Amino acid sequence: MRLTDYSVRDLLSAFASKDPTPGGGSAAALASAVGASLLMMVSGLPKTRNGSDEDRAALTTAGGVLAGLREGLTEAIDADTAAYDRVVAAYKMPKASADEQAARKAAIQDALRGATDVPLGVVRLSAAALDQAIAVATHGHRAAASDVGVAVALLRAGARGARLNVEINIGSVSDTGYAGEVAAEIARLGDATSRAADAADALL
Amino acid sequence: MRLTDYSVRDLLSAFASKDPTPGGGSAAALASAVGASLLMMVSGLPKTRNGSDEDRAALTTAGGVLAGLREGLTEAIDADTAAYDRVVAAYKMPKASADEQAARKAAIQDALRGATDVPLGVVRLSAAALDQAIAVATHGHRAAASDVGVAVALLRAGARGARLNVEINIGSVSDTGYAGEVAAEIARLGDATSRAADAADALL
Repeated sequence: MRLTDYSVRDLLSAFASKDPTPGGGSAAALASAVGASLLMMVSGLPKTRNGSDEDRAALTTAGGVLAGLREGLTEAIDADTAAYDRVVAAYKMPKASADEQAARKAAIQDALRGATDVPLGVVRLSAAALDQAIAVATHGHRAAASDVGVAVALLRAGARGARLNVEINIGSVSDTGYAGEVAAEIARLGDATSRAADAADALL
Repeated sequence: MRLTDYSVRDLLSAFASKDPTPGGGSAAALASAVGASLLMMVSGLPKTRNGSDEDRAALTTAGGVLAGLREGLTEAIDADTAAYDRVVAAYKMPKASADEQAARKAAIQDALRGATDVPLGVVRLSAAALDQAIAVATHGHRAAASDVGVAVALLRAGARGARLNVEINIGSVSDTGYAGEVAAEIARLGDATSRAADAADALL
């Protein structure tokens, strides 16, 4: 059963249980998915900032982009848990012979890259959603300012949470070229995320 | 049907729909409920920071406190939406006669206090959960550091999101004594929240 089919109460219980999954990676994806959803809500409200055609056009565009980002973030809730489960399964592979050791090592490295790529995707999607938050904060109805503010806070938290998961996984990746590229990208995205979030907050 | 009985996918759709509820207040409560749940997970892991009896005792205490906080935060997901729906209903009351106008005004003020008290409760519960995050970060297994980091980010976002909802509602409350007390409390809690979150992050 997919985590996104769980009831909210059951998902909270699953996060709280002492099983390692679902863990922080899925929680970060969920936070950003909720943030993107709130921005979609504000972009769809009948009232806009100034009631202008420009407002409506900008919000329609933002809403369309956010719908795609939200779908990717929603899929990442399950994908992160599946990727982490693959890492755990790889570590449990037999290691009696040299061949088994080599196969296990390769499987662990492959799984770790998967468990890095999923939260890296969440950082990218959260950064893209925060860019849209600037448009929604500029053109959305003023009465929904607190909803935009909550969305920005959740996307900031989702991006940070996903970044923590990227960092813990690349620490065990032996391909230093790949690890270095990922580290550079999340540092760049982290800066862009903070700038976009600050810009959106300043418009509220 | 309660929001906590919705599937995760359906709740995301409800946040994204152009209906005003569920909105940012419920989303903030959800973020903090997920954060508290992740801290419960780390406090229940078989491994602790140093494997000491002191670690286990501290984590057991923290886990018990967090279970109560998490329940309050989970209830607030629905309570915030119910409180906001009461505000909307009060604004729709008839206002033809002087009596009707007085009854409507009283109902609006009563509903606004309810819609302030729920997110104020979320700020308080999030602040209390962040205090426990310090204990979990100190005594929890180092391999779960990223889960604690995600929890801290989510509780910070939940506290901020709830505060935005308190502030937007007390702006319309006519009882200036009540509004002043609430404003002072959330400023104090905001400072305590930032300090506790920074302290927990510094331990990771």
